[in-house]
Amino acid sequence: MQAKLLIEKKRNGESLSNEEINFLIENFVSGDIPDYQFSALLMAIYFRGMNKSEIFALTEAMLNSGKRVNLRHLPVPPIDKHSTGGVGDKVSLILAPLVAAAGVPVPMMSGRGLGHSGGTLDKLESIPNFRTALSLDEFVEELEKINVAMIGQTDEIVPADRKIYALRDSTATVQSLPLIVSSIMSKKIAEGAQGLVLDVKTGRGAFLSELDESLELAINLISVGKKFGVRTTAYVTAMDQPLGNAVGNWLETKEAIDALKGDSPADLLEVTLTLSAEMVVLAGIESNFQSAKKKLIQLLESGKALEKFIELTAYQGGDVSVIEKPEKYPASKHRYAYRSQKKGVITKIDAYKIGMLSNQLGAGRNKVTDIIDPTAGIVFFKKEGDEVGKNDAIAELHYSKQMDESFLQRLMDDAIEVAEDEQRFEAKKLIIKYVSENGEIAEPDLS
Amino acid sequence: MQAKLLIEKKRNGESLSNEEINFLIENFVSGDIPDYQFSALLMAIYFRGMNKSEIFALTEAMLNSGKRVNLRHLPVPPIDKHSTGGVGDKVSLILAPLVAAAGVPVPMMSGRGLGHSGGTLDKLESIPNFRTALSLDEFVEELEKINVAMIGQTDEIVPADRKIYALRDSTATVQSLPLIVSSIMSKKIAEGAQGLVLDVKTGRGAFLSELDESLELAINLISVGKKFGVRTTAYVTAMDQPLGNAVGNWLETKEAIDALKGDSPADLLEVTLTLSAEMVVLAGIESNFQSAKKKLIQLLESGKALEKFIELTAYQGGDVSVIEKPEKYPASKHRYAYRSQKKGVITKIDAYKIGMLSNQLGAGRNKVTDIIDPTAGIVFFKKEGDEVGKNDAIAELHYSKQMDESFLQRLMDDAIEVAEDEQRFEAKKLIIKYVSENGEIAEPDLS
Repeated sequence: MQAKLLIEKKRNGESLSNEEINFLIENFVSGDIPDYQFSALLMAIYFRGMNKSEIFALTEAMLNSGKRVNLRHLPVPPIDKHSTGGVGDKVSLILAPLVAAAGVPVPMMSGRGLGHSGGTLDKLESIPNFRTALSLDEFVEELEKINVAMIGQTDEIVPADRKIYALRDSTATVQSLPLIVSSIMSKKIAEGAQGLVLDVKTGRGAFLSELDESLELAINLISVGKKFGVRTTAYVTAMDQPLGNAVGNWLETKEAIDALKGDSPADLLEVTLTLSAEMVVLAGIESNFQSAKKKLIQLLESGKALEKFIELTAYQGGDVSVIEKPEKYPASKHRYAYRSQKKGVITKIDAYKIGMLSNQLGAGRNKVTDIIDPTAGIVFFKKEGDEVGKNDAIAELHYSKQMDESFLQRLMDDAIEVAEDEQRFEAKKLIIKYVSENGEIAEPDLS
Repeated sequence: MQAKLLIEKKRNGESLSNEEINFLIENFVSGDIPDYQFSALLMAIYFRGMNKSEIFALTEAMLNSGKRVNLRHLPVPPIDKHSTGGVGDKVSLILAPLVAAAGVPVPMMSGRGLGHSGGTLDKLESIPNFRTALSLDEFVEELEKINVAMIGQTDEIVPADRKIYALRDSTATVQSLPLIVSSIMSKKIAEGAQGLVLDVKTGRGAFLSELDESLELAINLISVGKKFGVRTTAYVTAMDQPLGNAVGNWLETKEAIDALKGDSPADLLEVTLTLSAEMVVLAGIESNFQSAKKKLIQLLESGKALEKFIELTAYQGGDVSVIEKPEKYPASKHRYAYRSQKKGVITKIDAYKIGMLSNQLGAGRNKVTDIIDPTAGIVFFKKEGDEVGKNDAIAELHYSKQMDESFLQRLMDDAIEVAEDEQRFEAKKLIIKYVSENGEIAEPDLS
């Protein structure tokens, strides 16, 4: 087999066989196929796509590039959650301990912030000394002992993905459905989850902004899950404005801690409970969504979920005192209150622009080597649809570097719209669609 | 500017500005844009194409990566010919000395064999000691002294093309119109030609097999020539069966020498005279095609063209005795006569398959480092449309390595068709279309 002829085949719109896909992944990982050939292949895949059997073969070939964790000895099937990425999405920090407290093992391997979107690892690491770089043995042991582990992707898990992702990121081939699907699913299958609940974001702060694209992605992710024995379902949720009130690593972690203490913005609570209840049902702990949700609310109210988060943090070396007393956490050097210039209704808080602005404040990276300021970010006092008076504070920006307030104001003006005529605003649904493990799309039943 | 964003722009089907194209070429040549980003860009160009102004900018950026020869001091405008590549195409070896003998400077920079197609340099180098690696100063001096020079592309001419071509060759991005056009024209403009006659091949032995593709290529090449002040016209000619009777480096050179001595297959003579006459008209030496053709026939008959080829060969260090006495040339070790298995009419001699077979005999390369056997190749005794009797020899294969005759016979059987019913064969036109320097397509007037 020759890489060049396989690139040509995909370029011409033909499909590649399992054997050909294996050859490409194995030889790329070993270095026998150079980056410049593989990036041409990636661009050909971007244009030509892949059929289901090619996506299965690609996922399997990537999976086979590394180790696969076996968690079948756990008494309850381990279930994970994956979000396609958004702004202010701190759901994992609440959901993982909550679902674990309900008796479901949660083997969570997360990523770092990417572009405008935050990353769970960066949020966890805002807790002093919290270790996310655990070995696979430590990961399994932690799950056995406390039913939850939240770690970064190790070098042993799908090394092909790390190599391919780095190339995609620098060659404008990230936005390709088969490449997104195989990247997500190979890692989730490798980490040993037996069930997976997807939060596929849609809207202006999502990587795929159109609903039909998000649904297509959900259906493809689910079909790969099914093929590899990971029961997978999905919710498509709105990512137009940030989720919850806080954006930025510690600010979001603090909001998650507050939520675990029973004080959560409504949208954050709704998404968290929906995804968590689905996990509990998938694990077979509760027989239906309603009873699962009821159980989870009790675990939040009784403080059991918070206890689990403290246990998890202590287990991974983190300083639990900031969970018990978040006010102890150091503050950013500067704060700037962004105020409404008129009386009216907030019609837009652009999640994408807020994510990019939060990065500029120090909450994200432009390069992999950039260091994050955990205290930087934005806290909103208002959401879309809320009324504001003239000079009311809409949000407060937290940052420690020198920044020009009029520059910050311009960026906030650009991200936020206030209309005097409140008729202009029509609230959108937060949880938009449900996709079952057979790929059927349904209206979500959230009662 | 960031390479990644420019790849994304082209991937999305937007056009790149002159400044952006310059940035890409300059930084690729300097090594600041890595191969893996440039190959993704090439694949995006393959799918999205380029508009005219992008092709102009790309050609100019490539041109600016190296030196540009100035030949404006020559008393007659120098004119070159370029063929898009075929099998048995030894036209340049006859045309260059012939047109030079007519008083037109011919500054010819040629390439080596590629895939199934032969290369002028390899043919010239079958003449012992013929030097094609001349410096640009030697090239100009030779043109000043003897009105013709036939050399290889030097390192100083369009270094961007060499780097881009190597990448295209290994990433299945050779077959892209804007990349083909910019590669050909940047070199032709750089070598100092003021006029250019294109031989755009069409048919099963051409790189572009469909007539409309060949015409589109011709029109694009001509528009770039016009933009850069190189008067360019094109003939679209048939490349279904090999041109002339010989395929293989020395075998073709010998056929060219015979043609210069007045003994040429009809198709080879027709293509050579047509392209040559167009060059003489472009240079302003003759006012019309008919008088130019008449003059060229006289130069062949009088031996002046042959004299010029001997002068050229001597100037470039070649052994002229093999031109004077081709029978002196060493023969291949083995010969195999391929015979017709039935009486009938030859309906097909597949140029592509013959080119590939000739390579297997030793006439071409699979890798750049492969060494060519100049004596290897195939000589045909029959052309398409010719009648054959049972057991008549259709061709003779020349080779020096060990090869299995039954294997060779199978490959020849696959390339050649003989039909008992002669009605099945319909002769095609050899010179199919003419495209003027304004891009107008016309029926060629070959009278």
